[in-house]
Amino acid sequence: MEYLITDTRAGVSRRDFSLKATDLGFDFPVDFECRHQILHGGKQEGAEVITLRVGGMTLTVSPTRGMGVLYAQYADLRLGWDSPVKEVVNPAYMELGKQGGIGWLEGFNELVARCGYQWTGHPGEDQGEMLTLHGQIQNIPASVVRLSVESAPPYRVRLSGRVDERCFKRCEFEVWMHLDILPGEASFRISDELINRGSSAREYQIIYHNNFGVPLLEQGAEVCVPVKQLSPFNERAKEGLNTWSTMPAPTAGFDEEVFNIRPLGDSEGDTLALLRNAAADKGVAMRYNLNQLPVLTLWKNTDTPEQGYVVGLEPGTSFAYNRRYQRDLGLVPSIGAGESRLFNLQFDFLQDHAAVAAAEAEVAALQAAQSSEVLAEPLVAC
Amino acid sequence: MEYLITDTRAGVSRRDFSLKATDLGFDFPVDFECRHQILHGGKQEGAEVITLRVGGMTLTVSPTRGMGVLYAQYADLRLGWDSPVKEVVNPAYMELGKQGGIGWLEGFNELVARCGYQWTGHPGEDQGEMLTLHGQIQNIPASVVRLSVESAPPYRVRLSGRVDERCFKRCEFEVWMHLDILPGEASFRISDELINRGSSAREYQIIYHNNFGVPLLEQGAEVCVPVKQLSPFNERAKEGLNTWSTMPAPTAGFDEEVFNIRPLGDSEGDTLALLRNAAADKGVAMRYNLNQLPVLTLWKNTDTPEQGYVVGLEPGTSFAYNRRYQRDLGLVPSIGAGESRLFNLQFDFLQDHAAVAAAEAEVAALQAAQSSEVLAEPLVAC
Amino acid sequence: MEYLITDTRAGVSRRDFSLKATDLGFDFPVDFECRHQILHGGKQEGAEVITLRVGGMTLTVSPTRGMGVLYAQYADLRLGWDSPVKEVVNPAYMELGKQGGIGWLEGFNELVARCGYQWTGHPGEDQGEMLTLHGQIQNIPASVVRLSVESAPPYRVRLSGRVDERCFKRCEFEVWMHLDILPGEASFRISDELINRGSSAREYQIIYHNNFGVPLLEQGAEVCVPVKQLSPFNERAKEGLNTWSTMPAPTAGFDEEVFNIRPLGDSEGDTLALLRNAAADKGVAMRYNLNQLPVLTLWKNTDTPEQGYVVGLEPGTSFAYNRRYQRDLGLVPSIGAGESRLFNLQFDFLQDHAAVAAAEAEVAALQAAQSSEVLAEPLVAC
Repeated sequence: MEYLITDTRAGVSRRDFSLKATDLGFDFPVDFECRHQILHGGKQEGAEVITLRVGGMTLTVSPTRGMGVLYAQYADLRLGWDSPVKEVVNPAYMELGKQGGIGWLEGFNELVARCGYQWTGHPGEDQGEMLTLHGQIQNIPASVVRLSVESAPPYRVRLSGRVDERCFKRCEFEVWMHLDILPGEASFRISDELINRGSSAREYQIIYHNNFGVPLLEQGAEVCVPVKQLSPFNERAKEGLNTWSTMPAPTAGFDEEVFNIRPLGDSEGDTLALLRNAAADKGVAMRYNLNQLPVLTLWKNTDTPEQGYVVGLEPGTSFAYNRRYQRDLGLVPSIGAGESRLFNLQFDFLQDHAAVAAAEAEVAALQAAQSSEVLAEPLVAC
Repeated sequence: MEYLITDTRAGVSRRDFSLKATDLGFDFPVDFECRHQILHGGKQEGAEVITLRVGGMTLTVSPTRGMGVLYAQYADLRLGWDSPVKEVVNPAYMELGKQGGIGWLEGFNELVARCGYQWTGHPGEDQGEMLTLHGQIQNIPASVVRLSVESAPPYRVRLSGRVDERCFKRCEFEVWMHLDILPGEASFRISDELINRGSSAREYQIIYHNNFGVPLLEQGAEVCVPVKQLSPFNERAKEGLNTWSTMPAPTAGFDEEVFNIRPLGDSEGDTLALLRNAAADKGVAMRYNLNQLPVLTLWKNTDTPEQGYVVGLEPGTSFAYNRRYQRDLGLVPSIGAGESRLFNLQFDFLQDHAAVAAAEAEVAALQAAQSSEVLAEPLVAC
Repeated sequence: MEYLITDTRAGVSRRDFSLKATDLGFDFPVDFECRHQILHGGKQEGAEVITLRVGGMTLTVSPTRGMGVLYAQYADLRLGWDSPVKEVVNPAYMELGKQGGIGWLEGFNELVARCGYQWTGHPGEDQGEMLTLHGQIQNIPASVVRLSVESAPPYRVRLSGRVDERCFKRCEFEVWMHLDILPGEASFRISDELINRGSSAREYQIIYHNNFGVPLLEQGAEVCVPVKQLSPFNERAKEGLNTWSTMPAPTAGFDEEVFNIRPLGDSEGDTLALLRNAAADKGVAMRYNLNQLPVLTLWKNTDTPEQGYVVGLEPGTSFAYNRRYQRDLGLVPSIGAGESRLFNLQFDFLQDHAAVAAAEAEVAALQAAQSSEVLAEPLVAC
């Protein structure tokens, strides 16, 4: 069954959309609910949020904020974080160019925030144009929102959005963003397709800014990644290079340490990145492919809970430098006319020692192939 | 009969306004319908569109986008174009200052886009202030929207909007924008009145960015303008100077060639500019007055359909250079306190050989008075 | 009795809120009405306005514009002014960075406009970031709006809003803004509380941009302030230094003269600033405390009615210079983690000779303690 919630071309906008298992017209194996809400007040006036509950899995997504995933919960494990930004900010109230291009920070509080697609990374000038922090896509409302629920095994539930990044003379990007849940699985999947509808090749960049706070993040929590090459993002990160994978308690004044990682994958490029708690009995494993997303930014922002206690595991085509620095690194890919690029991410909820240990063993197996190279200096002096 | 659809001072907002011939209370000679819609989804969330149908003529106008005319159709001839920007972008989602001042391009898809009134033209600094591309008026929602329908011949239908460009210390402009249709005529008229409500004289600029794509635009289509002086806008346009008036097929990588034209008019200043298809059996003639709009920008953007196959015939007070370059050209006029300026444009749908030939003959007659001066170099080196 | 009108966290949004004395459920000593409206059309599309009437006092407040007070009226005396900006501009249509950072001017028409809290003052760069004119708070919609009406003497009516200025990595400010009316009093009070919810100390600034036009402002109207030190804001103001306190008739081309004042207060820091008409039989006295708001900007903008005939009495932590100039003046205070700062302002309507004379006598008494120092040169050369 397919349910169209929003479609700008077809003139569809079901602002009070709500669907329960009993509305499906067939037996669905687990509890099910999808609810569309429009928020009011503050900067969230008019912002849309969809809450999708499939069995023990709950996801909240904001179509207004580029199909960003606000948080995910499976059983009693929440993925997400507590940002100082409390509201689901309607991009109508955003001004990305603020204060030299950091306006993006006024809306940033998602579990999954996409940074792209014309550019990503730090603000600054590139080729005579001012690029604002982390691109625009997270602040573009979805033009299409669609829910589909399969009526036969595996009963896949898919929430899809199309977010257009279009600017005359600059880009004609359409991005289909699919979020899949299979009843009974402790996972959800993101399958994004970037399509260049123009007739010129265009540069593009994408970083999946995936952010995790409590309860996974705590003193002694560990990030496990199979590392081919590790380097500090900047001078500040050099201090923390030796303890990059271990998470401290919330630390006033810590601000952030950022690390550039070139991960290892298997022969197909498949890899994973892991965050687990101190007791190693809860964690999240993020699975993706290095052919799609060759580099990983580790964003260690273990500041106070009030200012943001959060760690980011951010696979991308690119690091977090301004685009002008990344061409020389080979991290500004191009997409030809009519071409598309797929990006697949799976988030596994690890709910006990065994699941954590198994994921760590996978990382170890990938790492066994090659030892890590650690660079003492940043790739880019900026 | 007069119908008030929106009036901010009077507190009127008839968001579901709809009017049919049978609602008029008198016999109207042709089919008639006016429908007000509010769009949803994507960046068009909340954008208003009015569709006005009078006999065979259909116009769509967006009050939210400064009364811009999205497209016009008479019988089977459509005026307008297919921009990579697909939605009617609510200015709430615009940020004109983006990427060095080109945010305007994220909303640009109209048949008639007004560029003004504090400034127009390319982005850049003038007198210590950053001016964004093509001014602000197209991204200011109308404060008043009014429909009037005459109950006696000629049964003129007028859709009026008032768009205010007001900024403390900078300008107190009110612009009345009237769109007129006479039943049975293959034409529509724009009558704009810019009023300076302040008590200081102010500089102003306006370009009518009128844009035409298929079906008129095609390989072999011709632009006919009585030319007093022609010059390339910049280096890029020098290459195309000899073929300025002939339209190529969609051409990947063509991007754009822009030409500055000082047109010829009759003794009253009346003139016309024409675009006709290759077979010379369909076209549009734009009639206006050189005392109001002394210069014409020809914007030849015959790129691919995906990226924008479009030609602009753009009468204005000014060329498309940044304002700082146009004072020396005498193209930054001033409007005194309490004064108003009128701008009248008529768009004629030319539907057969005879109509096209007659309009071409008019151009030829104006041209007969004086031969064209062609400058090899741009007026401005920028 | 407490009435929640908006609360983003609780999901409350009573968009059609209306309350009359007869709805209160108890005897209220004077006429009472509170009405919430959503405006439509132009740039005020979606803007909220609350009109609060308590006996002879009427206040209008826009939650959408940071709880700014549009105007106040007691009996037949209006406080407020007539800006060229006519609409209650929804911040969705604002772009503060426009034209080098003066976008704020496109929405400015309030009686009380708060300028803060990360910064205030003129646009320009400070510590590598572009600061726009007068900060952001006036263009942030309130996240909580609440009305409370006491059921026993003194029957205080309080309209409260919480406006959050939050930006990841930059600030975690919450500001509670309370507006109090006591039935029968010719006064209203503002009690604001700035709370730093972050865990780092932050710089902050606030100017209460209180603006008065006709009928108080007229030729011969006087500003009375107990002055410790007076200086011209800039070169322009030097010309008017000798006549700083006397208001001229509307004067074409006057633009503005701005004066920096360090006022005198009593032993508790309490002080007042007064504007009275030429006949000295009508006026407003603004009472506040110098420990909270140590400096006062006098903004003499006695230009034409069309462009803005208005005078500002603006107590603040800071003058109107860009923040980068004010650290050396000791006017960029800091607020520690978890701390709060209170700002109290009382506006008294002076309705006859006696009331004006009494307030003038208070000013004179404060001035008696010390003579004014007048500096011929601006504090800052900029």
